[in-house]
Amino acid sequence: MAADPLAPGVWGVVATPFTESTQDVDLASLAKLVGHYRRIGVTGVTVLGVFGEAMRLSAAEKRAVLEVVVETADLPIVVGASSTSPAPVTEEVELATDVVGDRLAGTMVQVNTPDPELLATQLNALHAATGAGLVVQDYPLVTGVSISAADLASAVEQVESVVAVKAEAPPTPPAIATLTARTGVPVFGGLGGVGLLDELAAGSAGAMTGFSFPEGLKACVDAWRRGGYQAALEAYLRYLPLVNFEAQARVGLAIRKEALRRRGLIAGSRVRAPAPGMPESLEKQLDRHLAAVENVEN
Amino acid sequence: MAADPLAPGVWGVVATPFTESTQDVDLASLAKLVGHYRRIGVTGVTVLGVFGEAMRLSAAEKRAVLEVVVETADLPIVVGASSTSPAPVTEEVELATDVVGDRLAGTMVQVNTPDPELLATQLNALHAATGAGLVVQDYPLVTGVSISAADLASAVEQVESVVAVKAEAPPTPPAIATLTARTGVPVFGGLGGVGLLDELAAGSAGAMTGFSFPEGLKACVDAWRRGGYQAALEAYLRYLPLVNFEAQARVGLAIRKEALRRRGLIAGSRVRAPAPGMPESLEKQLDRHLAAVENVEN
Amino acid sequence: MAADPLAPGVWGVVATPFTESTQDVDLASLAKLVGHYRRIGVTGVTVLGVFGEAMRLSAAEKRAVLEVVVETADLPIVVGASSTSPAPVTEEVELATDVVGDRLAGTMVQVNTPDPELLATQLNALHAATGAGLVVQDYPLVTGVSISAADLASAVEQVESVVAVKAEAPPTPPAIATLTARTGVPVFGGLGGVGLLDELAAGSAGAMTGFSFPEGLKACVDAWRRGGYQAALEAYLRYLPLVNFEAQARVGLAIRKEALRRRGLIAGSRVRAPAPGMPESLEKQLDRHLAAVENVEN
Amino acid sequence: MAADPLAPGVWGVVATPFTESTQDVDLASLAKLVGHYRRIGVTGVTVLGVFGEAMRLSAAEKRAVLEVVVETADLPIVVGASSTSPAPVTEEVELATDVVGDRLAGTMVQVNTPDPELLATQLNALHAATGAGLVVQDYPLVTGVSISAADLASAVEQVESVVAVKAEAPPTPPAIATLTARTGVPVFGGLGGVGLLDELAAGSAGAMTGFSFPEGLKACVDAWRRGGYQAALEAYLRYLPLVNFEAQARVGLAIRKEALRRRGLIAGSRVRAPAPGMPESLEKQLDRHLAAVENVEN
Repeated sequence: MAADPLAPGVWGVVATPFTESTQDVDLASLAKLVGHYRRIGVTGVTVLGVFGEAMRLSAAEKRAVLEVVVETADLPIVVGASSTSPAPVTEEVELATDVVGDRLAGTMVQVNTPDPELLATQLNALHAATGAGLVVQDYPLVTGVSISAADLASAVEQVESVVAVKAEAPPTPPAIATLTARTGVPVFGGLGGVGLLDELAAGSAGAMTGFSFPEGLKACVDAWRRGGYQAALEAYLRYLPLVNFEAQARVGLAIRKEALRRRGLIAGSRVRAPAPGMPESLEKQLDRHLAAVENVEN
Repeated sequence: MAADPLAPGVWGVVATPFTESTQDVDLASLAKLVGHYRRIGVTGVTVLGVFGEAMRLSAAEKRAVLEVVVETADLPIVVGASSTSPAPVTEEVELATDVVGDRLAGTMVQVNTPDPELLATQLNALHAATGAGLVVQDYPLVTGVSISAADLASAVEQVESVVAVKAEAPPTPPAIATLTARTGVPVFGGLGGVGLLDELAAGSAGAMTGFSFPEGLKACVDAWRRGGYQAALEAYLRYLPLVNFEAQARVGLAIRKEALRRRGLIAGSRVRAPAPGMPESLEKQLDRHLAAVENVEN
Repeated sequence: MAADPLAPGVWGVVATPFTESTQDVDLASLAKLVGHYRRIGVTGVTVLGVFGEAMRLSAAEKRAVLEVVVETADLPIVVGASSTSPAPVTEEVELATDVVGDRLAGTMVQVNTPDPELLATQLNALHAATGAGLVVQDYPLVTGVSISAADLASAVEQVESVVAVKAEAPPTPPAIATLTARTGVPVFGGLGGVGLLDELAAGSAGAMTGFSFPEGLKACVDAWRRGGYQAALEAYLRYLPLVNFEAQARVGLAIRKEALRRRGLIAGSRVRAPAPGMPESLEKQLDRHLAAVENVEN
Repeated sequence: MAADPLAPGVWGVVATPFTESTQDVDLASLAKLVGHYRRIGVTGVTVLGVFGEAMRLSAAEKRAVLEVVVETADLPIVVGASSTSPAPVTEEVELATDVVGDRLAGTMVQVNTPDPELLATQLNALHAATGAGLVVQDYPLVTGVSISAADLASAVEQVESVVAVKAEAPPTPPAIATLTARTGVPVFGGLGGVGLLDELAAGSAGAMTGFSFPEGLKACVDAWRRGGYQAALEAYLRYLPLVNFEAQARVGLAIRKEALRRRGLIAGSRVRAPAPGMPESLEKQLDRHLAAVENVEN
């Protein structure tokens, strides 16, 4: 069972589309979306994360999502766990292993304690129970748990099966600098790409985040590797207004799904309750941002 | 399918015991604990709540817990849902319905939005999908969601299938006064019984909470109904120091499980990670409090 | 300039009474209240703390409050600082020193960082600038800052001028156990006395908190020193229901002022905006609790 | 006494520079900074806000800061109040009125309650007591108080003396849309300019925020008025990477002061304790961002 570090680059975080009428998972749209990720050349995809509304899916729906993703594109897959405690996480990892098989690049689990020893113990036990490589997500906004970058590094150093860290505790650039200086593990930025340039400068291996134009994330990361700051800046600049627009607190997911819908990548933009939909007052500005970015693409 | 209001009194909130060696669910201890609840005459039991560490159990473990509770005691059962979104909650309610059948007095779901309309819509949809009576738990410490008592009352008024509210947003006494004045629904206090006297005075139907001497909760609630404030005060007074001791933030669950162990009601007092165990510095004081209460009991 | 450790016992935390009509500081009531504290034999008084609504007083009002307290009773005085940063805190300490003079037992400052080195540096600088003994208050609910008990102990060990710690980060008993094991500094519990028995058991030097019957706090602390747990329990038991009632989140201050008013110790019970007043639904229960405690007193 | 609405445009939020050696307020640097604001043509300046570290200044220092600002540049001035309760706020406003006189365009006060009636009552009383025009700042990260945009609009509608709202509760664009649709009051965005384009699109009157290149904020706002979205986008684009870099949580203020220092606008970049300094790992990236922006400027 692989515990290879995640390959650098952009890992596309996959939204879960729902039908407008029944709010069931729209598997056709899901396939289309994953196909798009493949077409633009992402390193891999991340499924059932926060952005994928995994905590709002039933187990049957999670399985269906994984099956479609596996069938649609021959890419490495990171699968998120929604639970934050070992027993139910193990169950989720087993589902992922069962459906995704050899394509499972890692299972993404949340930092659930500020105590580095306890975190390491739990991660080691999870790997022992499941054999899965672990992507450790540090996302205090979602979990309510804050760990210092130094303590997170200490935990990661004690767990061989960590294949990546997803750093989403602002400010992320200094955290990424600490993590990459102390561990050999690749660290990915998230948070919609708002800090992507600075995360790369801090040593990140790339981006693993949801954005309606993942082409922009890829252009930036590729340019960084080729030409450093200046190249990445030029590549990313035109996307930044949309990145910031989509990163709005609470309504960001709804905006991104609506942007994906307007791009034709999914059929409907519903988010499941209790998440709020996109405020009507943002409609026109979304159009403007999308038009501005599409101008660049063409 | 019943949506009768929950009967007043004490609903025993059931801890999930784990074996010290393997940390598996200790079903024998669970049966013993439920048997104790039955023996002291609680109105019903609440299983798979926060106090039952439901969010740290696998689905298989949840089923096993429910099965043992159903077999052990002929009592009405409220079953908690750990998820906070309709699709996975529905799945949990279906499990509860499947195992508990006619004995299911209600399914306990969390307030997951401050918006009363959205809350009502979700609750009505959940009942439509499952037929279950709903115990609405307002527990911001766990969910991070705060709703005003007035807005919660508005939501409850729109949902016929609500069989009770569990009020755990401090200060609970004024919230209970608002809820009972505006809805016909029974409201239960929780939070370890710290405010039980004041919750009864505010119109609560009783207690639904974890405490190592549920005898005390029952004595208080029974006395209140018989003799009002003065009787309840006399009945409860000797338990209050232990109640406050057990209500300590973060470590309260570990203290209660250790108290249950010392009482001989469960074999081991482990809590699952990442919950912290009982600090060693509390050992001696727990002994003192238990001895003081046992003196009263005898 | 004294940096003697605070004497053990009960430090009465003084509310700031306002007139019902103008909401000005009611200095006559203030004198009456402080007189009561003196009469029941507290070790000292704490003025301009959170319970004294210091953050809602002008500088002129703060001075007037201090002057009345100094004139009214020959007791050691701890003066709270409302600011959380060195420059304005220094200014507040200078006012306290100016008005209180030799009677200043300590100046109470908030923990404003989780970093023990930075905390120690600031405290040492504050003492160097003002000469005042420091009461370090750890009250995350008010400050939003959480420090571990171990880190707080580390900071205190580096600051000779600390004369006491006021531990108000729940759970307080294990924190007090850590602090007293590691430092020679007296530690006082607060939080309205909800955990007083357990704080004494953990090694606290007494209570420094607001409660409408400080007689109860004193009876408990005195009994503990004389006879340990059992004696303290007996002494405190009859006060506990009122203690818990008054400790209600957000409205606790308003309840306590109303209780003081009903006892005749202050003329009006107003709290200043934006603090909420006592909910009407609590009126009757307050009467019951007061009557029950007064029965004991007589 | 003026209660004219604030003029639209960019209000420069003034940092308070400290000397490296003594950490005293560096009045010469302050004058230089304000002079720069004047030179680039801001509409006015905002002094003693969160970005100005007002809560870390003594009253004497606040007065000195105001005096220098008044002397340095003939601009309208908004003065922030650090307190959140009427009595001490009144005192702060009196200081501002005393020093700033006719140039006082408004006094900035925090939303300190989610209750719109209570907020309106306090604001009206503050104006009655001081005569000052009020800039209402909605900044939950700093105050811990969250109010809905609809409730904030309700409050503002009841207070004639409100001259502006500073909207800093994310997501700000929909909040600004609600506020401008319901009130005639100008609304300014803050938060370092991260959402400036979207705030302008939502109807904001401009920006009132700290950024090391306020030239960028001005270029954007001016372009928006001239040419709408497309013009503003072109004007702002080159500043966005630095805007995002400076908006990093917790360390943003330190970054901005260091950027101002490197630009030669202030002599030292110290922030006062307990605020953290700029992490060393960000040094190089700050240089890159500054160079990239300076290229544009030239």
